[in-house]
Amino acid sequence: MAFNVGDKAEMKRKFSAEEVDLFAVLSEDKNPIHLDEAYSATTMFKKRIVHGSFVGSMISAILGNTLPGHGSIYLSQTMNFKKPVYLEDEVTCIVEVKELIADKSIYKLSTNCYNHANEMVVEGNAVILFKPNA
Amino acid sequence: MAFNVGDKAEMKRKFSAEEVDLFAVLSEDKNPIHLDEAYSATTMFKKRIVHGSFVGSMISAILGNTLPGHGSIYLSQTMNFKKPVYLEDEVTCIVEVKELIADKSIYKLSTNCYNHANEMVVEGNAVILFKPNA
Repeated sequence: MAFNVGDKAEMKRKFSAEEVDLFAVLSEDKNPIHLDEAYSATTMFKKRIVHGSFVGSMISAILGNTLPGHGSIYLSQTMNFKKPVYLEDEVTCIVEVKELIADKSIYKLSTNCYNHANEMVVEGNAVILFKPNA
Repeated sequence: MAFNVGDKAEMKRKFSAEEVDLFAVLSEDKNPIHLDEAYSATTMFKKRIVHGSFVGSMISAILGNTLPGHGSIYLSQTMNFKKPVYLEDEVTCIVEVKELIADKSIYKLSTNCYNHANEMVVEGNAVILFKPNA
C-alpha cells in the first residue's frame, strides 16, 4: 500500500492497573510512581501514572500495524512527555505522514498522543524505513 | 541521593521470545518482524527482532530504578535505532549524567544501548525531572 504526505492513522486505548503492573515486570522499571498508590499520593501527581515508555508504545503499534504497517522498521523516535497519563485515561495517539524521502522508502511522521480532555500528553516525531517486500 | 555530571549506571538483559510475544500483546504492536519466524526469514533481518520500544524501555528502567531512581519523572527521550536486536542478544544499556540544571532538579543524560558485540543498537538522550521528596 502506498501512503502520501498528510495520511493519518489513530489508535485509542486505556491503561489498566494490571497492564501497568505487567509493563513494570516486562520493562523492569519499578519506579513506585507507576506502581504504588500510597507513594504516588505523596507526589505532585497524587495518583499512579502510566510509564511514559508504555504510552509511547502506542506509536510503535500504529507504525507497526497500520501506518505504514507491516514492513516498517523503526529508525528513530523523539518523545516529549507533556502531561501525566493516569490509569484508565483514554489516550488517543495520532500518527501523520509529514515527509516521504528516498523514493518513498523513508517516512517522517508526527506522533502525538492526547488525553480524554484533548490535552497533548506526548509530542513526538518518528522516522521509519518502509520496505513492505523486503 | 545526589548525583553529579559523569555518574553512570548500566543494566544488562536479554529479550526472550515469550517476553517479545507479551510485549506485542501489551503494546498492541503486532508487526510480524517481531513475532513471526517465517515472515522474518524473508526480510533483510532474517530473524525476529525485538521491538525498538521494548529495547528502549531499558532506559526507563535505569532512570526509574537507579539513576536518578525513585522520584524521577520523564520529560523527554530521543532514540535512534542503529542496529536490530535479536532474541536472546545480551543488551547493555548505559545511562550517564551529562548536565544538571535548575538547581540540580533537571537531569540531561545520554542513554545508549549496545549489543553483545559492543555495537551501538540504540543511541539516545533523556531529560528527567528529579524530585526525590516531591
